Amino acid sequence: MARASPDAKACIFCDIAAHRIPAYIVYEDAEAVAFLDLFPFTRGHLLVVPKHHVARLTELPPAEYAPYVRALATMCRRVDRLTRDYNVSSNQGAAAGQIVFHLHFHVIPRYGEANPFHTAPRERLSEEDARTLVATLSAP
Amino acid sequence: MARASPDAKACIFCDIAAHRIPAYIVYEDAEAVAFLDLFPFTRGHLLVVPKHHVARLTELPPAEYAPYVRALATMCRRVDRLTRDYNVSSNQGAAAGQIVFHLHFHVIPRYGEANPFHTAPRERLSEEDARTLVATLSAP
Repeated sequence: MARASPDAKACIFCDIAAHRIPAYIVYEDAEAVAFLDLFPFTRGHLLVVPKHHVARLTELPPAEYAPYVRALATMCRRVDRLTRDYNVSSNQGAAAGQIVFHLHFHVIPRYGEANPFHTAPRERLSEEDARTLVATLSAP
Repeated sequence: MARASPDAKACIFCDIAAHRIPAYIVYEDAEAVAFLDLFPFTRGHLLVVPKHHVARLTELPPAEYAPYVRALATMCRRVDRLTRDYNVSSNQGAAAGQIVFHLHFHVIPRYGEANPFHTAPRERLSEEDARTLVATLSAP
């Protein structure tokens, strides 16, 4: 359950963390949640989010550093099931591409694409592939 | 001083962390070091590196999670002096763009460029700008 946050009411990632809206969740612990990106750059593209609402890495309380990286490293280890190559990336600020102002790291699997960051249009994740990926990436 | 590592002899980031070769270092503590990228995507592009040699995030010992994020968040806070917008990104594996196989996160300031990741050619950091940036980013 996400902790209360003054910004939580307007935040889609707080809503996902609190199970108020559905998402393809592939990981959850007391501090963090991970779920599939609905418009993935590549297959298996997922987001790792601290449950506690902060907008940026600089706002994350130091006590949450280790738990957040533990969740992130766990998801990297699971993405190894898809490919050993991936980008781990967080956009901080609108000019850096941040769209949801709740801290998140993307894990973007790479399969030899020349430039996966600019595929246009990004296709919506299919229900079928989402189910397959949730099975692959949810297993401990 | 970097801890001994079987891979350290062949690793340029171990050499930088141990001060065996020069770099524009902007931060250092017992666990991590940060220095300017010599071929920056944007002005102030820097790397944050754990001193302990590991190739990937999945290999970082859990005891080092918090110290590494502390260094990373500290550098984000200092990059706020240049701009509030930046990408925090780590390439894991050759197909994801990893060139030096010692874990590192890039902090890439953004100033409104449409696509800073594909500027070609990347120009070498000038000595003059490096000195200015070291002064800006080294101050606690």
